[in-house]
Order: sequence, then structure tokens, then C-alpha cells
Amino acid sequence: MPEQITLYSAKICPYAQRAEIALAEVGADFKRYEIDLSNKPEWYAPKVNPASKVPAIAYGGPDVAPDQPSPESTKIPESLVLLQLIPELYPGKSSLIPKDPIVLAQARLFIETFSNTFSPAWVAFIFKGEEGAEEKLRSAIETVIKAKTHKYAVSDEFTIADAAVVPFLARLELLLTTDTGKFAPGQGSKFIASLKADASFNSFFEYLNLLKERESFKQTWHPDEVLAHFRKRLAELNAQK
Amino acid sequence: MPEQITLYSAKICPYAQRAEIALAEVGADFKRYEIDLSNKPEWYAPKVNPASKVPAIAYGGPDVAPDQPSPESTKIPESLVLLQLIPELYPGKSSLIPKDPIVLAQARLFIETFSNTFSPAWVAFIFKGEEGAEEKLRSAIETVIKAKTHKYAVSDEFTIADAAVVPFLARLELLLTTDTGKFAPGQGSKFIASLKADASFNSFFEYLNLLKERESFKQTWHPDEVLAHFRKRLAELNAQK
Ligand SMILES: N[C@@H](CCC(=O)N[C@@H](CS)C(=O)NCC(=O)O)C(=O)O
Ligand SMILES: N[C@@H](CCC(=O)N[C@@H](CS)C(=O)NCC(=O)O)C(=O)O
Repeated sequence: MPEQITLYSAKICPYAQRAEIALAEVGADFKRYEIDLSNKPEWYAPKVNPASKVPAIAYGGPDVAPDQPSPESTKIPESLVLLQLIPELYPGKSSLIPKDPIVLAQARLFIETFSNTFSPAWVAFIFKGEEGAEEKLRSAIETVIKAKTHKYAVSDEFTIADAAVVPFLARLELLLTTDTGKFAPGQGSKFIASLKADASFNSFFEYLNLLKERESFKQTWHPDEVLAHFRKRLAELNAQK
Repeated sequence: MPEQITLYSAKICPYAQRAEIALAEVGADFKRYEIDLSNKPEWYAPKVNPASKVPAIAYGGPDVAPDQPSPESTKIPESLVLLQLIPELYPGKSSLIPKDPIVLAQARLFIETFSNTFSPAWVAFIFKGEEGAEEKLRSAIETVIKAKTHKYAVSDEFTIADAAVVPFLARLELLLTTDTGKFAPGQGSKFIASLKADASFNSFFEYLNLLKERESFKQTWHPDEVLAHFRKRLAELNAQK
């Protein structure tokens, strides 16, 4: 049995959702502590994560209140580290880590490709409203389609590759359909409608729908909070201009 | 028994050396093919790695000549993916993957910290001769010292964390001591001498010496080729100015 786990998380954060999905997939028993990212508790950076980001876990040590972390627990940040650690702590409890090392390597490559192409494209479109961002995002989605080789990303089972991307893909769909982003009014919903009308993106939306049906995703997905957060953040960005 | 492995590598490349160290640590039987990075074979990108980088492996498939890669083998690029895959293909053959999942997570965090701090600092100092690069590099080395918790990086055994960093640290030392870099003449050797004279860097040099004694490092380290390559590259950079 693994030792106790306290997860420091935030409903709005796609990185934190990766860790939450992993914990749900393995059926872990854990304490969850919501960090208000706009007003972080002062103990969080010194006692949990010097980088002051979510997600992070406190592992082991005595049974303490999450807002009084013990120096005896091991603190581990970084969503991709946690996404692998959690199923490794619960071997045999989930399909997250493919048994075949080659498929596992392919899952890691899928995540790497996604991080290198999708993340900059989504920041360019949603937060910066950059020139050419629409084309960049379309081509990033094409890269995801090409990299996907099975029912799920790299296997017919749900793996770390799927858990790593669904928090971002779901946020993208939500923000585009609700026209939440630093683009011209209506451009988000028009863009996603154009993708949905294009047969070459069918497999992308099928994949996205499959991911969104996953229990571990549904349990950890808070669209109202996500939307409210991004609206506030965009209002702040606009006020700065 | 794992299937056959062909490694596409280059003596000068620190990323490729990570994969070579892993193969040496597990005692794998493999074919090695040297890619001339200044004159890459035309089949390499289409048939092995579309990103056209080393390292990459061809795994499995029929027994073919390395310069005639079979479409039936699985092609896997990316040094950090290979550094984990290789010991996973040879379980129990090395200490690369710590048995304790928490220590493994710490090894992955060590690599992440190293990539985020050391890599930009070394590029700034060696290739760009940037203002303030010396201070940046000093502080990156301090970050490595602080992150190291055991005899090796995260354990008393040699793990993926050590294999990931030694190719870069050894190149840094070589280039500084030979004054090979885009800095003022003599600045490299003066800088490393100042670190060696500073007691707070003792543990760094002890760690570096320990890593350099590792058989898997020594077998895969080609200082003459590394030096010749960097000299040529710096001459090209200077000619562009
Ligand atoms: N590389 C980190 C990134 C995590 C991250 O950026 N989290 C954001 C929230 S989504 C955060 O905590 N930011 C700090 C802040 O908002 O002050 C990971 O993969 O876990
Ligand atoms: N992210 C890659 C980087 C590999 C890389 O940049 N390799 C260099 C040589 S050190 C390369 O092949 N560059 C392509 C070229 O020189 O054309 C990895 O970790 O394997």
C-alpha cells in the first residue's frame, strides 16, 4: 500500500487535472486541497512547492492537515512526473502505463509532440490573438491526429498520453465554443464550427468525445470554474492594453 | 530478450551520448551507426527520424543493414525517451531506473531542473557569449549542487538522472578548460579555475569526477571529436558575424 497522498490542486488548472485523472484512474485514496491561484496561501511555496505552482503532492509522513504540511513528507511537483508516479505507486490498478515498454515510449513521445506543438499554438490563439494563430492551431490539431495510432492515442486502452492531453483539449473546445479568448468576437466559435464541418477533423472530434466520456475526466472537470477563470484572466489582459 | 536495436548516433552529440550510456549500462547488444551531422544521409529523415536528429533507434524488424532501415522496425527518437526505454527493455540489468517510484520521480525532477536551468545557461555562455552569462552559468551549477541529494544525483547508485547530465557537464568542462566558446580569449579557463578555487563548488567537481569515472561514460566519450566539432561550429558562428 502506498503511503498517504495529499494533492495540492486547482480546478481551473489543466496541469493539475492530469494528476487528478491519474489518481481517479488508480482509485487512490487521497486528500485534496484547493489552492486559490489568485490568492495563494503563504505557506504553499516555502512548505510545498518552491515554484509555487499546482499540481504538487505531499507523500508519506504523519497524518497532518493539508494546510499544515509536515517537513517529513516528500513533496513532488510537475504534472508529467506525477502522471507517471501515481500509476507506479499503484501497479496493476490502471491501464495508464502500457505494459509494453515500446508502447510506453510511444506514449511519452506523443506527450512530447503534443507539448511542443499544441501548447504554443493554443497560447497564441487564446491568450495572444496572434496573427496566423488560427492556422497554427489547425496544424497543431493535425499533428495530434497524425500522432494518434489507436483507439486511444497509442493503444486501445487509456494511457498517460490520453490523460496528459484531455485537460487541454477540453479547455480548448470550451473556450472556442463560448468565444472566450483574445480573438475577434465570434472567431472562436466560427473556427471550431469550421473544423467540425471538415471531414478531415472527424477523427479528432471522435477522439475528443471518447476522452470526455472517461469517468476520471468527468469527475475532475469543472467547466464553470474554468470559464469564469479564463474570462477574468482575459479581462485583466485586456485592461493592461 | 529484447528484439534487435540499431542506434543512430553521433560522437559529438550530448543527447546521443545519453542513449549510448544507457545501452552500455544494461549491456545491450546493438548495432551503432554514426550519422555525420554536417552531411546527413538522405534516407535518415524519411526512414528513421522525421525531425532529422540523433539519437534515434530502430527496434525489432528484420536484420538489415543500418543504412537500409526496414519499414518493419519501430523508430524511436528523443534522448530522454530512450534513456528510460532502454533499461525498461532490460529489466534488472542496471541501476538506471530506481526501484522506489518516489526516487524515480526525483530522478525525473532532477532532469527537468537540469534542462530548465543548465541548458539555457550553457548556450548563453558557450555559443552566445551573452552579457551576464558567467553569472547565469554559476547559478545553474549551484542549482545542480542543491538538487543533488546523494552520492549520485538522487541515489547512491547511478540512475537516469546521472546519465542525462554527464554528457553536458563533461562537454562544459572540456570547452571551458580549452577556451572553446564565444567568450573573450582566456575567459573560459579563468572561469572554471575560479570555480575550482571556490570551496562551495567542491561537491560539484567531486560529482563530475565520479561521473567521469563511470565505465559507460568513458566508453562513449570522444573528447577529440567533440572539441574539433565545437571549434568548427564556433568558427562558422564567428564567420557569420
Ligand atoms: N510545468 C508545470 C506547470 C504547472 C502550472 O503552470 N500551473 C499553473 C496553474 S495552471 C500555476 O500553478 N501557476 C502559478 C500561478 O498561477 O501563480 C506542470 O506541468 O505541473
Ligand atoms: N530533443 C532531442 C535533441 C537532439 C538533438 O538536438 N540532436 C542534435 C545533435 S546534438 C541533432 O541531431 N541536430 C540535428 C542537426 O544537427 O542537423 C533529444 O533529446 O534527443
